Order: sequence, then structure tokens, then C-alpha cells
Amino acid sequence: MKTTRHALPAEHQRGLYEAIFRRRDIRNFLPDEVPDEVLARLIVAAHHAASVGFTQPWDFIVVRDLDRRREVKRVFEQERARNAAQFTGARLRKFLGLKLEGILEAPLNLIVTCEPDRFGPAVLGKVSIREVEVYSTCLAVGNLWLAARAEGLGVGWVSIVRNDVLRDIFSIPPQVIPVAYLCIGFVEAFPDQPLLESAEWAARMPPCALLHFDSWEGRTDGVGHTLTELVQDPAIWRDLLDRPTPSLARQPDRAAPPAAAPDDAARRRGR
Amino acid sequence: MKTTRHALPAEHQRGLYEAIFRRRDIRNFLPDEVPDEVLARLIVAAHHAASVGFTQPWDFIVVRDLDRRREVKRVFEQERARNAAQFTGARLRKFLGLKLEGILEAPLNLIVTCEPDRFGPAVLGKVSIREVEVYSTCLAVGNLWLAARAEGLGVGWVSIVRNDVLRDIFSIPPQVIPVAYLCIGFVEAFPDQPLLESAEWAARMPPCALLHFDSWEGRTDGVGHTLTELVQDPAIWRDLLDRPTPSLARQPDRAAPPAAAPDDAARRRGR
Repeated sequence: MKTTRHALPAEHQRGLYEAIFRRRDIRNFLPDEVPDEVLARLIVAAHHAASVGFTQPWDFIVVRDLDRRREVKRVFEQERARNAAQFTGARLRKFLGLKLEGILEAPLNLIVTCEPDRFGPAVLGKVSIREVEVYSTCLAVGNLWLAARAEGLGVGWVSIVRNDVLRDIFSIPPQVIPVAYLCIGFVEAFPDQPLLESAEWAARMPPCALLHFDSWEGRTDGVGHTLTELVQDPAIWRDLLDRPTPSLARQPDRAAPPAAAPDDAARRRGR
Repeated sequence: MKTTRHALPAEHQRGLYEAIFRRRDIRNFLPDEVPDEVLARLIVAAHHAASVGFTQPWDFIVVRDLDRRREVKRVFEQERARNAAQFTGARLRKFLGLKLEGILEAPLNLIVTCEPDRFGPAVLGKVSIREVEVYSTCLAVGNLWLAARAEGLGVGWVSIVRNDVLRDIFSIPPQVIPVAYLCIGFVEAFPDQPLLESAEWAARMPPCALLHFDSWEGRTDGVGHTLTELVQDPAIWRDLLDRPTPSLARQPDRAAPPAAAPDDAARRRGR
């Protein structure tokens, strides 16, 4: 077909999809050093993310220093205790049993920051939505995470930290937002499922439950297409992946409630 | 090397990097329909993004309806006028000459939303940083954008809109945040450079200017590595890409100021 002449070759498409489906949030790392040449590719991949008004608002703080990492770990422990206070009973016990970071084990930590007004307040595309540069920075993190997976490197995003403390520890100026605190390193294994899925903390939602057509209330595709079925059909991966990852290989049970929230799952089933 | 045994094969790594470096923010579309099977792969790729506490906070509104798109376009025009008011002189003329969206030409619009409290307010990883679910949603957009590039589809992110108006037009509930308004379709071409770069609106920053070591002020790598040089060295792509994209192939001029902001560029050069 004419229109697909810009598609990447099948093996390259497959490479992208493999990186997407096999990427994991990693909390266990091997001590081996990350070669600088590999880290350089990760940074360049991040730097090629889309950014509003081509502002490229990101910076990268490469952290190897163990003293600073110990300070981050201390704050993580405090915040984790606050996070735990949200949960009770079996869910609290499950929470406390989860390993949530590899700040000290990973050979490398990396902070990705966002400087919204780097080139002054006038930004193409920015009158209307204030958070756009932070969105761009997240796209950079996403590129880096996928590149890491392709290189065989695990990445864990530690969200149980506090930006004011990160600013203190790493002398980050007040106008710069620490968006992502990442642990990076080689791994023993990339598990088939996300940790929080195999620990039955939450279940993967069936993608058909996430689709709307022309408005939030539009739950079927008016033009008679079958998108809601296709998103759960392993056949769409037939020519691309020869060993689909578990979440693609099986036909998900559409009624499966997220383990976390049966009430809400019931609401969703009813939609 | 033992540690790299989880790396994807070279051709798959290359596929990911090609998608990253050849992705563009597209504003010109061919009218050809996007096949549902392809759109399904894009949605599933987005749904496999990382999310804080495995909350999967995203929804996808597939928009084909032309009346609603005309309303969006009308708001875009108003917001574009407000955006233009930030600029003067030659920069204003340049701004007004830029095509910034393909809302009506693209066969498909897609809204990616975020529902932060989908499974209740208690979220693993969420006490400390309030915006984490929005970050997750941006990662989903990033996956979708790269998958689209691999499939030969262009994506344009329209940030000159207003969330209150999008909520009205598409009946989006108040607790749901419209994060990304995307135009999607096949394209005549994927340009070598970002539109805002070839229009000399802004220049790509040299990646070495974005690196810090162990703290914001640390501008050289204390352990004697050469990361600041490697991020600008085309040789790191030698075994991966046989035709590096322009921004990788040339050795960037490290003194090149972003066209947008000579003063700030001077500050950066001095770092």
C-alpha cells in the first residue's frame, strides 16, 4: 500500500514492539558498571524526544556518588512509611513485602529534570496548557527507558521521593523540576510480568475497557469497526512477533477485575 | 559480555533507535484511513507503558466526528492568536507562517486522558509526588508515537488547546485530565529535521550541555569518563545504524546557540 511506504521494515518494527512489551520497572540490579558508550546512547535517545516548541527542557544528572545516594535512600524510607500508612490489613502486608527501589545496588542513578522557562517564558504551544514542558520531559524518560531495555539494561523509576529534598541533595536550582529519579543497571532477568502484576497488587486492565469513540460516553465505534475486539486479538501481532509476551498471547478475560479495586472494576464492567 | 545477554538482537535495537530518531511532530497528513488493526497495535503499545503503582490511568478517545473536530479547530485558532501575542517582529511573522496542526486533514484524532484516582486515592508510590499518574500517561503517549512511526504513521501533538473546552466537547468527566490531543495519519514524508528546527525557530541543543555529574554544578565526570564527548560522537552508532540521521551524523557545533535565545545560549556556553 502506498501509504505504508514510510513504515520501518518488519524486523525494525518488531524491535520497537519487543522493547515496549519487554520493558519492566526494575528494582534488582547486578553491580556491573554501565559502559559509558551505552549510557551515551541512552542520553542521546532521550534527547531526541518530542518537546513543545522544540524547547528540549531536560537535563540529566548522572549520579554515582554513594553518599548522596544514601541520603536519597534515607528519604525514600521515610516516604515509604508515609505511603504505607495509606494501606491496611493484607494490602499493607503486601506493600511492606515489595522491594520498590535499587538506589544503592544499581551502579548508576540518573535524575531527569525539566527547566520550563529555559529560553524565557514565551514558548510556542504554551499559552494554553501549563505543564507541557514536563510532558516533554516524560517523553524523554520514555525514550531512555526503551533504549535501556534494548541494550539489556534495567531501569527503575523511584517515585517515592521528595522534590525539595532532591533539590537540596543535588543543588538543583528552584526553577528546575526533578521529574524522574531513575536507577539503572544490568539485571539477572527481565520478568515476564510487571512486579506489581505478579505480586497480585493490581491486574492489567483489558484494553477494550479504555476505548471511547467521539466522546467519553461513546463506547462503541459508530462507523462499524472492530477496534474494541482487535486490541485484544493476538492475531494483530501474528506477522510481527513470533513469541508474543504473556499479556498479548492470551485472550484476556474481559471481566477480570483489577485486583486492587473490585468496586471500580465492577463500574468499568458496566460501562 | 555476561551482563548484556538480555540485550535485544542488533536489528531489533536498530529498529527502536530508528523509530526514536525518525519520529517527527507531524502537521501535514494524507487523507487515507488508518487501518483498525494498525490503530489497535498503537493502543496496545500505549497500554504497555509504565505506570505508577500499575494504575494504568489512561483512556483513549478515538475521534473521527468532523463536527467536534471543527469545534476543536475553532478553539485552536483562538488559542493560537493568544500564543502569537507573546511574540513580536520577525519571530511573530515566523510564528504566523508555521502550520501547527492537522486537526481536520488527519483521518483520525486521538485524545489520551489521565484519571488519577481511578482506583481510589491510595496509590503505591503516590504520597510524595502528586503528578505521577500524568507522567505515566505521557509515557503511554510516547509509546504510541514511536509505534506510529514504526508503522509509517505521523502523529502531531496539538498543545494549543484548552482542557476545559475539550471536556465540554467530548463530555470528559471533571476528574479526568485530557493530557494529549493527537492528530494521526499517513504522511507524504517524514522530514529529516523537526519542523521547528528547519524553520530556524530553535536549534537542537548539543547533548553535552545537558549533562551534570553527581550534582547540578558538576559539569565534568569525576571518575574520568568521557560521557560528555561520547554523546556527540557518531561512532557510538557505528554498529547500530548504517545511515545515521542528520543530528547524529554530523559532529554538532558545540557553540551553536539555539536560534530562539541567544542570551541564554551564551549562559549555557559558559557553563
